[in-house]
Amino acid sequence: MAIVGVNNCPIESLDYEVVENEVYNQDWRSRGKLQIFQYQVLKWALALFVGLVVALIGFFSNITVENIAGFKLLLTSNLMLQSRYMAAFVVYIGCSTALAAAAAALCAYIAPAAAGSGIPEVKAYLNGIDAHSILAPSTLLVKIVGSILGVSAGFVVGKEGPMVHIGACVASLLGQGGSRKYGLTWNWIRYFKNDLDRRDLITCGAAAGVAAAFRAPVGGVLFALEEVTSWWRSALLWRTFSTTAVVAMVLRALINYCRSGHCGLFGKGGLIMFDLSSRQATYTATDLATVMLLGILGGLLGALFNFLVDGILRVYSLLNEKGERYKIILTVTISVITSCCTFGLPWLTTCTPCPPELAGKCPTIGRSGNFKNFQCPPGHYNALASLFFNTNDDAIRNLFSAGTHGEFGVSTLLTFFTTVYTLGILTYGVAVPSGLFIPVILAGASFGRLIGTLLGSISGLDLGLFALLGAASFLGGTMRMTVSVCVILLELTNDLHLLPLIMLVLLIAKTVADCFNKGVYEQMVRMKGFPFLEVHAEPCMRSLVASDVVSGPLVTFSSVERVGTVVETLRHTGHNGFPVIEEPPSAPAPELCGLVLRSHLLVLLQGRIFTRGRAKTSAGEVFRTLAPFDFAKAGSGKGLKVEDLELTPEEMDMYVDLHPITNRSPYTVVENMSLAKAAGLFRGLGLRHMCVVPKTQGRSPVVGILTRHDFMPQYIRGLYPNTIPR
Amino acid sequence: MAIVGVNNCPIESLDYEVVENEVYNQDWRSRGKLQIFQYQVLKWALALFVGLVVALIGFFSNITVENIAGFKLLLTSNLMLQSRYMAAFVVYIGCSTALAAAAAALCAYIAPAAAGSGIPEVKAYLNGIDAHSILAPSTLLVKIVGSILGVSAGFVVGKEGPMVHIGACVASLLGQGGSRKYGLTWNWIRYFKNDLDRRDLITCGAAAGVAAAFRAPVGGVLFALEEVTSWWRSALLWRTFSTTAVVAMVLRALINYCRSGHCGLFGKGGLIMFDLSSRQATYTATDLATVMLLGILGGLLGALFNFLVDGILRVYSLLNEKGERYKIILTVTISVITSCCTFGLPWLTTCTPCPPELAGKCPTIGRSGNFKNFQCPPGHYNALASLFFNTNDDAIRNLFSAGTHGEFGVSTLLTFFTTVYTLGILTYGVAVPSGLFIPVILAGASFGRLIGTLLGSISGLDLGLFALLGAASFLGGTMRMTVSVCVILLELTNDLHLLPLIMLVLLIAKTVADCFNKGVYEQMVRMKGFPFLEVHAEPCMRSLVASDVVSGPLVTFSSVERVGTVVETLRHTGHNGFPVIEEPPSAPAPELCGLVLRSHLLVLLQGRIFTRGRAKTSAGEVFRTLAPFDFAKAGSGKGLKVEDLELTPEEMDMYVDLHPITNRSPYTVVENMSLAKAAGLFRGLGLRHMCVVPKTQGRSPVVGILTRHDFMPQYIRGLYPNTIPR
Repeated sequence: MAIVGVNNCPIESLDYEVVENEVYNQDWRSRGKLQIFQYQVLKWALALFVGLVVALIGFFSNITVENIAGFKLLLTSNLMLQSRYMAAFVVYIGCSTALAAAAAALCAYIAPAAAGSGIPEVKAYLNGIDAHSILAPSTLLVKIVGSILGVSAGFVVGKEGPMVHIGACVASLLGQGGSRKYGLTWNWIRYFKNDLDRRDLITCGAAAGVAAAFRAPVGGVLFALEEVTSWWRSALLWRTFSTTAVVAMVLRALINYCRSGHCGLFGKGGLIMFDLSSRQATYTATDLATVMLLGILGGLLGALFNFLVDGILRVYSLLNEKGERYKIILTVTISVITSCCTFGLPWLTTCTPCPPELAGKCPTIGRSGNFKNFQCPPGHYNALASLFFNTNDDAIRNLFSAGTHGEFGVSTLLTFFTTVYTLGILTYGVAVPSGLFIPVILAGASFGRLIGTLLGSISGLDLGLFALLGAASFLGGTMRMTVSVCVILLELTNDLHLLPLIMLVLLIAKTVADCFNKGVYEQMVRMKGFPFLEVHAEPCMRSLVASDVVSGPLVTFSSVERVGTVVETLRHTGHNGFPVIEEPPSAPAPELCGLVLRSHLLVLLQGRIFTRGRAKTSAGEVFRTLAPFDFAKAGSGKGLKVEDLELTPEEMDMYVDLHPITNRSPYTVVENMSLAKAAGLFRGLGLRHMCVVPKTQGRSPVVGILTRHDFMPQYIRGLYPNTIPR
Repeated sequence: MAIVGVNNCPIESLDYEVVENEVYNQDWRSRGKLQIFQYQVLKWALALFVGLVVALIGFFSNITVENIAGFKLLLTSNLMLQSRYMAAFVVYIGCSTALAAAAAALCAYIAPAAAGSGIPEVKAYLNGIDAHSILAPSTLLVKIVGSILGVSAGFVVGKEGPMVHIGACVASLLGQGGSRKYGLTWNWIRYFKNDLDRRDLITCGAAAGVAAAFRAPVGGVLFALEEVTSWWRSALLWRTFSTTAVVAMVLRALINYCRSGHCGLFGKGGLIMFDLSSRQATYTATDLATVMLLGILGGLLGALFNFLVDGILRVYSLLNEKGERYKIILTVTISVITSCCTFGLPWLTTCTPCPPELAGKCPTIGRSGNFKNFQCPPGHYNALASLFFNTNDDAIRNLFSAGTHGEFGVSTLLTFFTTVYTLGILTYGVAVPSGLFIPVILAGASFGRLIGTLLGSISGLDLGLFALLGAASFLGGTMRMTVSVCVILLELTNDLHLLPLIMLVLLIAKTVADCFNKGVYEQMVRMKGFPFLEVHAEPCMRSLVASDVVSGPLVTFSSVERVGTVVETLRHTGHNGFPVIEEPPSAPAPELCGLVLRSHLLVLLQGRIFTRGRAKTSAGEVFRTLAPFDFAKAGSGKGLKVEDLELTPEEMDMYVDLHPITNRSPYTVVENMSLAKAAGLFRGLGLRHMCVVPKTQGRSPVVGILTRHDFMPQYIRGLYPNTIPR
């Protein structure tokens, strides 16, 4: 049954089970070795191509952001140098607001699904939930442009989360194989017209997104594995890895090209974003204790962050429901607040005289660098402005920088941390594509550096290292990822000696935060109302059996059914799978023949393979009218609909043989099977329908159908409010 | 049914399915919050403790090897310096042979399961195959000592593979919770007396083994994920990661301690084994082409390696079957050949004059270093001896060393490569614990350096980098791992800039090698006759249905059964699971009540919970005599046996109610379910038994039981020799 989810967009389940009906088997058997080879080659080629496209998009958006934001900052800086502070403020706030409004308008009017991080949506898709607009071309376009505009507008958001969504969209579009409507279908791609191959490709896309965002190929694979996918095979590891390898190589080549000055304001940064490999890492027991403290505090603040984000999202969704205009107003308001903070707060701090040994470098000329002059007299710098009045990437680089002990004072770091933490919570949920990685890393890094400065007398660790560990603890506390965050940070910083410390801080932060609430992405999946299948069944399901949750009247078809009956049933129910019953005289007693899918029924009806009486049709006969390709699953929301059928009353009175399209081996459970075990089967094999068969004889051969919906805790709670503790 | 496998050791399946019978449910319900918390804490504590123990063992064996091998080499070197070449040879070959013979004797007489790498065995265990001696304490002991002796003996073997096995053994022993026989059982551990928790712990152990061997914590997790486990959950990622984090931290602390000279001859090497981070990595298109060539050649040679290892193992197994003495003779023979090669071959090469700029360092004094003097006059060094007359670790370090262009000539490298490649193949399969990583890395590194030297005029890459890439290509070609090898190499060399190149070479090598045969571990699992469940069902299974492979007469029990019948059945069949049928008058018609396990039956019989007539017993009554702990699964080969039962003839005539121990929700498939889909279900959920139920009514409620055995391709091929292509 179609459930209406977020943004009133219908949610369907995906068919991850291979429907092995006669049509499929005959098509499969007819494939020669050449076609199987084609399929294999194409599968690889597509995965690699996804990597290439995602790397290009990631690089393009990176350059564009650096240029737009850089231009904005340069313009303002120049006005500041001329002491035209008011003009500078107007230019700064004007640019930011314009960019923010543009991003919000795109998101609100063209593709509402592009707002937010996108990781929860991709996670839901790979769990088997299909919300039509999630991976649509318009979403992709708005996500790219909106993300560039949003980051350039100076929001405390990253482009990393959106890159995951972009990667998934790209993979999904390439897997669709062009448009049938415009005759652009590539014939070879027909083998990929099924949800299983699309799932694999989208996993590759998500991994490529992370790889492109952080330039972390191994981290990308691990992120896909740890956070995004619900099912994993060893073969997939291998394929995602090659996708991210392509990303790494393309990015490397492009960066080398840009180093020679071809990319405008796009500046520093090789394949490693924050290269700190020069730092020496030896640490004592006291240092370890400090790091543990950082882990505990990071876990607590991370859990609080998740709690507050959840609250803010609930408030915002009330506002956003009122209409597109409210979305834009909300976004612009947050943008103005952000601009006021980033421009206004540096005025509160006093100017610091430049250290004499850095005569040439301080105050910084141009846009990147640690020592922003801002409103200070020559020879002085404004520490807060060095953090605020910068792109987020540069601010992180400043915080991570080693050997800079005196640069940021306690008050500077405290102000920055509080502001970024608050803005991060306030910004997530406005109508722009917004990643959570950067806000969390920013807040964590300033927090870590703050703790490091406070504990300076006790611990001998470098403050840049403190910042890095603070970022790790916040990432562990909010996202609850371990291995992938660890590898991403390693790939970002290129310092393997830090591994044990990063691991320790992550473990502690995650453990502490897990005592309070769930990870931020899981929380969002739940809040968006996706019927997400968890790995473990709820304990309450142990005391129920499969037949307890079977709902509604069961709709079955006879194996050779009247066309009119089929059409009427399809019109009046929302079901997607129907048990087919073999009835006497074909069988001695009614027995379960299999399961038929709505989409296959529609194709068969459209093909008008009817008979006057109850007669059998072979798969061969079906193929005389229809190609195997016709039964392939179309992309989201693109398949045939029952309204498209135009059958004459005469045809409605004929019969259609369902045998060729019936899945003869549906997975079944006996009605008194423990619901928890049934859920394990359903989740473990990634099913969409599961037939419930009777325990005792002499009854109908199938007593119900279980779908994803029937395993949702809230649904079961509704049925049995008393037996189940919340 | 028990299958007799390698070394005549019986192979059983493991119970990864949670048997939710009444006894289990009552026990579970009675657990308070405190007990669940205890369970959680203990689970974590055990995982961390496994990490600690494995790190200590790994470090201890490392130091011991360095000291024994170092002492042997020093002794020989000193004799060489005195020009007493014959004496040196006798000492060298004598030490090596004695060490080899000791290792072989241990393996042959005490624990035959300790020979070889152990990775295939651990892989099989985690696939659900229990061969009793695999994880026994004697195996652990012999593996540790034998591995130290074998590596010290100078064999071309590593201690990395054995470390994985050692890690798994440690985890298994800790998970058993002490010995019941000696009253050492720790009460808390009872919650872990099941195969599922043991499986998780052993996965952690395997990861810890790799982490300790390569000092590569992230690589360890990925290795467990990619190569060792068959089932994976996100929670496991998190737990293995903390285990390897402990390993990394303990090792780091120990190495720091050793740096101050407390560990004898244990020398260099921080947490990173081959630290080359000083190298500059920029590369051009020509370099990429060279790297691709290296990948292709590595893939070809890797596939050839696997083919030859397979052949040699078959020859050796014929020899080894003849008795323990033959095993020792074979080992000693190979040891003598190895010693002759390593001592003899350096004489064939001419002495190289030391480069004048390295006056102090060449020739090397002491045992480590690049420039072995060997038989050369002062001021000269023997390049071949620098590789051969060294521990394997030092040889690898020499090959990987950067900025050493003239050091090894083409003939030196060619000789070394050919010898190591051949010895690597010959050595695997002798009765010593022998890892494959080191031979493969050695051969690959020398091969890579050889290619680099030959292509010196074309490619500008460093020769040490060539060696690294050669090692990567060989690892990809033999083991077919991608992400884990990549991360292990990164953690070994601490050079993230090399990532794209390593990825490229791995991808190409694996792709090329996959065209010829399977990975070396998969090959060995197959050769050892383990009934390994593959992820994908064989294509032939698609044309069969579940009932086609059901074999033998089905043995069922009535829900309340005569004790004598149960005992007789247990005595005369080897089955481990029996369907329980509810018969009239308890039910209107015979129906499937569930499945009962042999081990539970034995416990119930031992407890003598019998009734005079056919009467029901509740779980509560069972618990009056037996504790829930009594039903816990004992470790391999330790459970009750039917021979242990001593029942009087009177008791044999009484009845026993099987309801409390019957798993009421066994997974079932309908008899006409496609065998491929049944296999998917069996593999996907990690089952041990699956009931086949009839399609039509009026027959017995269960028509057969499917076990692991029934899904083996060779078994199916035996049943249907014509329909199935090989």
